[in-house]
Amino acid sequence: MKKTYLLTPGPTPIPESVQAEFAKPIIHHRTPEFEKVFASVRIQLKTLFQTKQEVLTLAATGTGAMDAAFVNVCSPGDTVITLNAGKFGERWTKIAEAYGVKAIEIKVEPGESISPTQVEEAIKKYPNARGVFFQASETSTGVKLPVKAIVDLCKQNNILSIVDAITACGVFELPMDAWNIDVLITGSQKALMIPPGLAFIALSDHAWKIASTAKLPKYYFDLHKELKMQVKNQTAWTPAISLIQGLEHALDIMLEDGLEPNFKRHDILAEATRAGAKALGLELLAKKESDSSTAVTAVRVPGSVKDGKQIPKLMREKYGVIITGGQEELEGKIFRLSHFGYCGAFDITTGLSALEMVLRELGHKVSPGAGVAAAISIIEKRGLFT
Amino acid sequence: MKKTYLLTPGPTPIPESVQAEFAKPIIHHRTPEFEKVFASVRIQLKTLFQTKQEVLTLAATGTGAMDAAFVNVCSPGDTVITLNAGKFGERWTKIAEAYGVKAIEIKVEPGESISPTQVEEAIKKYPNARGVFFQASETSTGVKLPVKAIVDLCKQNNILSIVDAITACGVFELPMDAWNIDVLITGSQKALMIPPGLAFIALSDHAWKIASTAKLPKYYFDLHKELKMQVKNQTAWTPAISLIQGLEHALDIMLEDGLEPNFKRHDILAEATRAGAKALGLELLAKKESDSSTAVTAVRVPGSVKDGKQIPKLMREKYGVIITGGQEELEGKIFRLSHFGYCGAFDITTGLSALEMVLRELGHKVSPGAGVAAAISIIEKRGLFT
Repeated sequence: MKKTYLLTPGPTPIPESVQAEFAKPIIHHRTPEFEKVFASVRIQLKTLFQTKQEVLTLAATGTGAMDAAFVNVCSPGDTVITLNAGKFGERWTKIAEAYGVKAIEIKVEPGESISPTQVEEAIKKYPNARGVFFQASETSTGVKLPVKAIVDLCKQNNILSIVDAITACGVFELPMDAWNIDVLITGSQKALMIPPGLAFIALSDHAWKIASTAKLPKYYFDLHKELKMQVKNQTAWTPAISLIQGLEHALDIMLEDGLEPNFKRHDILAEATRAGAKALGLELLAKKESDSSTAVTAVRVPGSVKDGKQIPKLMREKYGVIITGGQEELEGKIFRLSHFGYCGAFDITTGLSALEMVLRELGHKVSPGAGVAAAISIIEKRGLFT
Repeated sequence: MKKTYLLTPGPTPIPESVQAEFAKPIIHHRTPEFEKVFASVRIQLKTLFQTKQEVLTLAATGTGAMDAAFVNVCSPGDTVITLNAGKFGERWTKIAEAYGVKAIEIKVEPGESISPTQVEEAIKKYPNARGVFFQASETSTGVKLPVKAIVDLCKQNNILSIVDAITACGVFELPMDAWNIDVLITGSQKALMIPPGLAFIALSDHAWKIASTAKLPKYYFDLHKELKMQVKNQTAWTPAISLIQGLEHALDIMLEDGLEPNFKRHDILAEATRAGAKALGLELLAKKESDSSTAVTAVRVPGSVKDGKQIPKLMREKYGVIITGGQEELEGKIFRLSHFGYCGAFDITTGLSALEMVLRELGHKVSPGAGVAAAISIIEKRGLFT
């Protein structure tokens, strides 16, 4: 028997009481029982997205919602601006390519964010672009993008803003209506604390208007069909019923005291993680600490460690602590500590404790307890428990 | 407290031990633990589909797999033949329309099947059609289509056969490789006895060849991307992990003694249901009893019942027995009794017992116990328990 600890940026840990929900008998979706659950979920999702728009629930994972966003607002011949601060930003470009839409990609080095100035220049050069497609939090590098400033530029230039908030929605402030975000997306296995299999998407009035004439073909992801059904507490196609049943309970827990305590907790846990990593003599991937995402912290493998892939491997195999390494070009160069969703102070100290042992084992000199001490200091100073 | 009984054609009832699986902690998908589960599921799905091809698992419901099938084998300018024996057959036509592909639709009255002769005539008229898209079992009317004969015609004419087996795979004989089926599709909430949220699709060598040049755009449903990953026990996008964990267990139960006992059980339960309905003085929707699907039996609302919608409503509200009514044009005209998946003799007697009481209440004269007696007679005669 080895106890395991899930510290990954999706799936995130599932609260025990939510997990138990999934053992409940399934209900049929064309019944008043399901409609009652769905009605509750619809209200809660609007609170989460901070919108008066309908937040549509799709039976798909996050990439499905990215695909849905794209095909519902774009037409053949369109040009779009995509912001590539990592693997998920690059995905917008690949989606555009798959649909034969010209993507003007702004690409930065891993660990860098994208500045509003860069976006402004692109918009000036391509004033007829359909939209700017980007991430609020780039999960592969742990970097935030300046959402509000980018959305403001889009608004000023009458261009759609399409925000993948898969590891951002419910993690930090991202008020859809107040900031005029046109399309906002998230997934179930993130801040929502349930297994993967559901994706969520909301469109502004402006985006719905564009969607009504957008000509890329779609069927399963036709959002007008979904809207028509979901306002009646049904879905266009069979919904992922059991996940929606669990979601209702997860949203109840998450939103019990509103969104604000979630934002504050994530912010403190992220700062504590960064402080802990630095105290272990490590460098963050994020070039500027102010660009760090409060969902996940990417940490550079120190030069003293020959094979960076050993860090997540040993963490998992020897200590039972599941973290993620770098993806694709970042494989072996970074590892990522997640601190959102059903995550508290002692998940941070768990991660840093295991990390200290692993680093020592791999030849990186560590001052004993330094990581945990630094994290606790932040947690106390910022009053997580007060 | 009212005990409820789920007798619907999807979601079908979930075995208690499978339901309990969903309360287990979630695992991360980029781990050896997940890969072990997925490797087991891959082998079992090949047994289910009776194929040597890879059966791809998608995070979507059945319509997602229909969409995937279509966009992976069709190109703009294609003509396809669609067989509309009900709402789900009509869906193939609507998918074609959504993608700007010309659909030659063969449509029959609800309750009728489609004859190989009709298909042969269409193929003769449109010899360059990309494929024939149809259902093995049309869930909305409870009618089977002559899959083998249609697939043979496709093969002879070098046209793809695309078979929606969402309520057929694992229900009755449908050997993909032996019958030369080009594309076979199913969903998780049917014979597989788990909640909705997963869809499955396999392609023949011929279909893969066509897919490699098919030009309809796709991203989330790009099956080449999935194939590349799934042979390595991973998925292109985040998988619906918890459903896959449950699926492993459900497949273990279902395939313990192979496919054959499942086919036999479904066939007996279907015959028992039909005998029971007839003994209650009811008429089947299926014009010929030999066309009846062994998944679900559609029964006409008798003339003595004024409002046909009251039958499923009373069944559910008063007796706790959840059945489905007719959809769209069949609403109020039929109701449907399901008898596949985790379903045994006493689900049939439950359904018929409740139905007898409901019919009497609604003014249809019923000989007491006649339905159950007829069903038991079939169950005994055909030796379900021997």
